[in-house]
Amino acid sequence: MSIVVMKFGGTSVADADKIRAAARRAVRTQKKGHQVVMVVSAMGKTTDALVDLAEQVMRGKPAPKREMDQLLSTGEQVTISLMAMAMEEMGASAISLTAGQIGMVTDEAHTKARIKSIAAGRIREQLDEGRIVIVAGFQGVTAGGAVTTLGRGGSNVTLVAIAAALKADLCENYTDVDGVYTTDPRIVPNARKISIISYDEMLELASLGASVLHNRAVEFAKKYDVPVHVRSSLNNRKGTMIVAETESMERIAVSGVALKEEVARVSLSKVPDRPGIAARIFHTIATHDIVVDDIIQTVSEDGTAVVSFTVDPGELSEAKAVCNGLAAALKCDVRYEDHLAKVSAVGVGMRVHTGVAEKMFAALAKAKVNIENITTSEIRISCLIDRTQGKKALRAVHDAFELGAKKTKSKTARKAAKK
Amino acid sequence: MSIVVMKFGGTSVADADKIRAAARRAVRTQKKGHQVVMVVSAMGKTTDALVDLAEQVMRGKPAPKREMDQLLSTGEQVTISLMAMAMEEMGASAISLTAGQIGMVTDEAHTKARIKSIAAGRIREQLDEGRIVIVAGFQGVTAGGAVTTLGRGGSNVTLVAIAAALKADLCENYTDVDGVYTTDPRIVPNARKISIISYDEMLELASLGASVLHNRAVEFAKKYDVPVHVRSSLNNRKGTMIVAETESMERIAVSGVALKEEVARVSLSKVPDRPGIAARIFHTIATHDIVVDDIIQTVSEDGTAVVSFTVDPGELSEAKAVCNGLAAALKCDVRYEDHLAKVSAVGVGMRVHTGVAEKMFAALAKAKVNIENITTSEIRISCLIDRTQGKKALRAVHDAFELGAKKTKSKTARKAAKK
Repeated sequence: MSIVVMKFGGTSVADADKIRAAARRAVRTQKKGHQVVMVVSAMGKTTDALVDLAEQVMRGKPAPKREMDQLLSTGEQVTISLMAMAMEEMGASAISLTAGQIGMVTDEAHTKARIKSIAAGRIREQLDEGRIVIVAGFQGVTAGGAVTTLGRGGSNVTLVAIAAALKADLCENYTDVDGVYTTDPRIVPNARKISIISYDEMLELASLGASVLHNRAVEFAKKYDVPVHVRSSLNNRKGTMIVAETESMERIAVSGVALKEEVARVSLSKVPDRPGIAARIFHTIATHDIVVDDIIQTVSEDGTAVVSFTVDPGELSEAKAVCNGLAAALKCDVRYEDHLAKVSAVGVGMRVHTGVAEKMFAALAKAKVNIENITTSEIRISCLIDRTQGKKALRAVHDAFELGAKKTKSKTARKAAKK
Repeated sequence: MSIVVMKFGGTSVADADKIRAAARRAVRTQKKGHQVVMVVSAMGKTTDALVDLAEQVMRGKPAPKREMDQLLSTGEQVTISLMAMAMEEMGASAISLTAGQIGMVTDEAHTKARIKSIAAGRIREQLDEGRIVIVAGFQGVTAGGAVTTLGRGGSNVTLVAIAAALKADLCENYTDVDGVYTTDPRIVPNARKISIISYDEMLELASLGASVLHNRAVEFAKKYDVPVHVRSSLNNRKGTMIVAETESMERIAVSGVALKEEVARVSLSKVPDRPGIAARIFHTIATHDIVVDDIIQTVSEDGTAVVSFTVDPGELSEAKAVCNGLAAALKCDVRYEDHLAKVSAVGVGMRVHTGVAEKMFAALAKAKVNIENITTSEIRISCLIDRTQGKKALRAVHDAFELGAKKTKSKTARKAAKK
């Protein structure tokens, strides 16, 4: 008998009808002869409402993290019990389990805890008694019994962790999109659904904005080699399989392209070019909890270095405060730019195909998009460009690698999108 | 150092401001040098909203009880975490604990579980570290880790159970009324707040409608001799102390009078008067989960018996179905009346004072209220009367035992009430 672990996100369990629809899917799957575990998120806007209550009580001050976790974990607990009710109402046998009840033990890092172990036996026991097991996503429990939460994308981490612990045959992430697309269909209407993609490609695409599965979940899936099926809760179509890399994947140079619409850049110039300087700069930045993206260091003709990096525009003012101080200490110049976007092409095929970079740059040139910076990884090429040209650049690169659906449809769609 | 356990009900924690007000009270109490434990209910209408969700999911069918408990227990969990936040915001050190976290172990009777044990050490540990401990009322956990709830009045049971387990010096029930009154002040405006009352009197009054503390909680308090202070969360006035009986209480014959405004009566007549008949009748009724109140059996001149009992009018149609069957089987007559009310006088002093019944009957006669039935316990006299005369009867008995506030005020109030 095979084990299927399925997860439904907040929008897929937002009301009683949606909960019943999700329940029906699980019951159907069980009737086909599978053992079924379901992971669920909090209903729709529940978490927001709880956060709002906490803010009222705290008068805007940050809430103590342990209590925040104790509070937020109730959201998923509501969903699991309602889901179990719905299944029982349909004649199935079901049981809801909180993180504490399945022994999902994490470290003590409240609001962003890491899973340490899962007492998979408790889930198996229930499955073997013929029950559908419904597990609260996003939450864990410390060895001492305090409730923790797993941070952003936490429910997906729960999904993959449970699938790994049970050695599940199938791990399905039901969401409000059909799967992973070659790029954002809202910007490029002829974007095509990808049927199969590697963990590494998914990691590069996810960090660039294709957020159907949070990076922590993908990393977890990669680590334990859990194939994840990302699919829509609204229909029965196949979605995207996220799996370990296969040789056949290398036939395609670029699997997807992504646009990060808002990027800010910090450039330190006339930096003394001696060992330890970069370490000092990024240590200082890290201690201020600023998340740094692409880093570039080049040496000028005068022997000094230029160190530049990108940050989220929302963190730019914080970055300014830190870097002004750094520039003064290092006696170097600093410049801030908040007019950039980043377009990226991703594909494991880049490792074997040549000319991928050239083709991307040519496509941007033809579209009259100026490239301000280039960074690459083994399976990704990213270009910083002017923010106003972001969508145009994305379409150009997507077309250049022929990622779209049928050409005829593509032209019409492109016209429509330009209007 | 003394331990104070205080409880705030749903209306006293209905929003962020009320939660902060309750938190302030606990913080103030701690600053006076006490160790403080707070028990809280779910915020305002939270439980109703959760029940409503369950009904939607279940399409009106009854929900599985285990899942109902898993669902409803989130209400209190929300309150405890918000309460801990509020206290932390005020500079105090606080920790919220669910029933699972304090080891409040119950039996497996979901939706009406009974407490078996409390790991009081876990609460003491936190108190000894200087924290205010906030405990989720109404909920428990089975030895196997399933969440249970304690049924109606459950938060008060939690309050008393924790006070007993900690051997607390003071147990305070903060509610939206000032305390226990000699009778319902909405009907008798000169009703007086009782400053001290015995557990037994409270039990008789509570079952008659003075519902500031549910009977199960009072029974628990009596069993473990926990004095409970019922008081208002809106002011600092003394409320009512509910304590073990003292000799001085016997000086007053009647402590309070109560009115049950709607009572229905079932009378079986021409019942064969032989051993086992009453047992058979009430066994049949009990198996249909009908709650029976006062039972009277008398023997007629023809040797047959009349067995009558009262039920809640809401259960009368259920009772009819059962008793029609019984009457047919026993070949006796049956009659149903739904026009009654019950007025009762309660006081431990009845045990030593004579003439209490006489005074009550005289007061009713003077008010031209006909008595349809009389039942008594050691500390209570109850009369069934016509429903339309209920309030008048209550005022008459309250006056007869001189329970009201000052006479002058009383007359004015009585006039006002009569209008």
